[in-house]
Amino acid sequence: MSALRHFVHLRDRAPEEILRLVDAALALKAAPPAARPLAGKSLAFCFMNPSLRTQVSFAAATHSLGGLPITLNMGSGGTWGMEAAEGVVMDGTAAEHLKEAVPVLGRYCAAVALRSFPAGKSWAEDKAEPHLSAFRRWSTVPVINMESATGHPCQALADLMTIQERMAPRGKNFLLTWAPHIKALPTAVADSAVEIAALAGMNVTIARPEGWDLDADVMARVRASCAANGARLTVTDDPAAAYAGQHVVYAKSWGSLRDYGAPPPSDAAFRAKWMVDAAKMRRAADPLFLHCLPVRRNLVVADEVLDGPWSAVIDEAENRLHAAKAVLLDLLAPETAASAVPPAAPRRHPR
Amino acid sequence: MSALRHFVHLRDRAPEEILRLVDAALALKAAPPAARPLAGKSLAFCFMNPSLRTQVSFAAATHSLGGLPITLNMGSGGTWGMEAAEGVVMDGTAAEHLKEAVPVLGRYCAAVALRSFPAGKSWAEDKAEPHLSAFRRWSTVPVINMESATGHPCQALADLMTIQERMAPRGKNFLLTWAPHIKALPTAVADSAVEIAALAGMNVTIARPEGWDLDADVMARVRASCAANGARLTVTDDPAAAYAGQHVVYAKSWGSLRDYGAPPPSDAAFRAKWMVDAAKMRRAADPLFLHCLPVRRNLVVADEVLDGPWSAVIDEAENRLHAAKAVLLDLLAPETAASAVPPAAPRRHPR
Amino acid sequence: MSALRHFVHLRDRAPEEILRLVDAALALKAAPPAARPLAGKSLAFCFMNPSLRTQVSFAAATHSLGGLPITLNMGSGGTWGMEAAEGVVMDGTAAEHLKEAVPVLGRYCAAVALRSFPAGKSWAEDKAEPHLSAFRRWSTVPVINMESATGHPCQALADLMTIQERMAPRGKNFLLTWAPHIKALPTAVADSAVEIAALAGMNVTIARPEGWDLDADVMARVRASCAANGARLTVTDDPAAAYAGQHVVYAKSWGSLRDYGAPPPSDAAFRAKWMVDAAKMRRAADPLFLHCLPVRRNLVVADEVLDGPWSAVIDEAENRLHAAKAVLLDLLAPETAASAVPPAAPRRHPR
Repeated sequence: MSALRHFVHLRDRAPEEILRLVDAALALKAAPPAARPLAGKSLAFCFMNPSLRTQVSFAAATHSLGGLPITLNMGSGGTWGMEAAEGVVMDGTAAEHLKEAVPVLGRYCAAVALRSFPAGKSWAEDKAEPHLSAFRRWSTVPVINMESATGHPCQALADLMTIQERMAPRGKNFLLTWAPHIKALPTAVADSAVEIAALAGMNVTIARPEGWDLDADVMARVRASCAANGARLTVTDDPAAAYAGQHVVYAKSWGSLRDYGAPPPSDAAFRAKWMVDAAKMRRAADPLFLHCLPVRRNLVVADEVLDGPWSAVIDEAENRLHAAKAVLLDLLAPETAASAVPPAAPRRHPR
Repeated sequence: MSALRHFVHLRDRAPEEILRLVDAALALKAAPPAARPLAGKSLAFCFMNPSLRTQVSFAAATHSLGGLPITLNMGSGGTWGMEAAEGVVMDGTAAEHLKEAVPVLGRYCAAVALRSFPAGKSWAEDKAEPHLSAFRRWSTVPVINMESATGHPCQALADLMTIQERMAPRGKNFLLTWAPHIKALPTAVADSAVEIAALAGMNVTIARPEGWDLDADVMARVRASCAANGARLTVTDDPAAAYAGQHVVYAKSWGSLRDYGAPPPSDAAFRAKWMVDAAKMRRAADPLFLHCLPVRRNLVVADEVLDGPWSAVIDEAENRLHAAKAVLLDLLAPETAASAVPPAAPRRHPR
Repeated sequence: MSALRHFVHLRDRAPEEILRLVDAALALKAAPPAARPLAGKSLAFCFMNPSLRTQVSFAAATHSLGGLPITLNMGSGGTWGMEAAEGVVMDGTAAEHLKEAVPVLGRYCAAVALRSFPAGKSWAEDKAEPHLSAFRRWSTVPVINMESATGHPCQALADLMTIQERMAPRGKNFLLTWAPHIKALPTAVADSAVEIAALAGMNVTIARPEGWDLDADVMARVRASCAANGARLTVTDDPAAAYAGQHVVYAKSWGSLRDYGAPPPSDAAFRAKWMVDAAKMRRAADPLFLHCLPVRRNLVVADEVLDGPWSAVIDEAENRLHAAKAVLLDLLAPETAASAVPPAAPRRHPR
């Protein structure tokens, strides 16, 4: 058997492969594929958490390629509660073990995809990604990560696509800014955003409050990518100053890994300091505003930014569809994927 | 950009257009379309409330035209809770704003459809239809109303189809009778039923208890249609007498707009007075019995009526499928829709 | 109208028909059908209980034949609560009667399928299968049983397929062994497993604690099949001894019909006595281990068995897909089904 090809983490692939996937997705956006390489095939999209963009973009992408998307809300009534740990006596709430469920899905479906958010009790446990690891260990078909504790690689492809549609990223400045929230959210989107920006050769600035550092492994990968590309990596706790000179402002809230699971401060001054607003945006010259969505308006980002000329969040969300097609073709019909990318894929840089 | 075409309310279209859609649906029933104009396309069906007929008929219609129906249970675990109001600080339960969600769906899907029942607290607030209005305001693709506070236009198309299959409606007598229930239900189905009966030139009688009047705007539209068609409009609180001479008896329970949100009286005499039963049906000459379903047997209508010769409720439900096809073709493939209607569409009037 | 063809219970069909369906399913596994006889058609899969294999295998099978699977979670928010009893005043929680819902689904869909577990209060009431009976009584299209109180016939087809892939069943020894659990589970899988083993001419042994006998009607059918095939039927409460000489060990937990609804004993000795483990398996010569899944590891069966050379549970689960195709073709495209079975269908007996 040839090695099984998954799309689980950016770090599992060579940087060139990731950049090629972004180019392939842009080519698929320019010329939607007419072939139906997934005709007659079904794909299982397993959600342990809510989803709008991920669910609908993968469903639409699958159908456009001829396949059937089967969306499963795992463990919330629709299917059985799932156990991931080995060796346990299953006399609790979980009626099924992933050691059976995952290979069974592989007998019915051409690929399996999983969304599994961190549980928020222990970062060490969450970082091990028990459900996603179980999928990867026991699957006999390609596995797609639809957001886990340490990454959201499909989102990252769409992020870089959106940047590339507006500028050549190499040497440009990318700001990831932490943002206020009512909950301690996962770090996955932030992780993948800075990882792909660094891969693409951008100078990366991370603005976050003291205590909200990203995981050391993520930072090591970003540092290595920046070094390899001759780019700068800056970490600061002064958000307003951080905007100066940025070409891309990427907003995201996430929970502290130090005070794990605790919601961030809710006082007005703290929120005002960290929310993305027009005054901050104006410190950069015509920057692009990105966010993965869903976004809480006037908490993470002010209406004036989301509704202003900076925002590309709807384009960014649309790009999830084309990125999904690129990933599906890469995993399930690589010959079709290859032909989808013209020899010299044009990059549009309208800015 | 040409004006976006929606199917939101009967009142948004000229009466001739509505009647043409009914004819188109009947033609599609007689000769199911062989073309697959939606091939490769996905459609988003967003439900904030339960559904059987609407969900399945739109799914089957979409598939029969080549498309993929994506059914989303909005805000009940499957997707994020949705905010509709502008300018708010989103620090509550809603994680996503429709100002993002609706345009994003439009990037993935050829059309978006919404079911959003009234909240039952304030008629003024419900009548403004915040969710549906948000869909219409922010959508970049056609919007379909799958029942809102003030109308259920797809149901109305099926209602008139079912009448036309049995009689030429013009000049015939249509009774909408209020019926008992355990809850204060929406008025939407009743609104649309009398609006389309009036559009089709029928004499309209509404039998309801004092205090259960339909909204004044609905009544004004019905009055205008009846006047334009030279038809009679009667409102009465004597249900038994109202049956005399009726060709169609349309039963529906709805909540009082005066005592908004309160359930109707539950005493046996009141229920017996208003429930549709055989004795009342026999006051008319061979009347047709219609109800949108689901229906509570022996509370809204007696078994003897639903199971008797008068009932056309299963045909009426089937017609939802053909009406859905007509609406989808009208919005998404008007050239196919036009060719589906033979130059002289035959109307069957077996009665 | 020709008689409507359902797939509800093994007992509704002649034994030869059941065995032919198993052969057809094996032929479909060897050569997946290229035809799309369900193109443009929708099928309704109604779940009143959780499902993984049944839901996904039927969805994938339907898509592979060109149709759209519509999965409905009945009565759990997605659709309306359903009433099955006739003549009642519907002033409770159920908003819709199956007397309407089932025929309506038949107007939209080419077939309707139902999963409805027993309620666990009264065996007499559950044995009458009120929901499934309502589907059969009121459906105008083929009905498929996706597990009811007294049978899971689609699982049984997959069970026998898995046996036939490894041995010629006639004259071989089949052990159904009761297994520990935290809940009083339905007997349906156990019922169907012994019924199809007996149909196929196997000697049947049932090992269960005193008080956990299967329903007398099931036992009568198994006894009759064994008699007709010249096979032995044994019932014992000594699990360890029962393994000797078995070719197939089929594990399943079920609730007592005598002490109906009560969970089984949870003490360690009882659990150890009845759990399937390697020591017991080794009392037979190279036996095949089957279980319908989901299975609670180290409660029903030890890891060493599920992960050992005996287990065929993943193949057994895969066979649900091919069995589903065989059932769908049998009901909806019998001409395609017939051509799918080569004149002399090869049976593989690698053991």
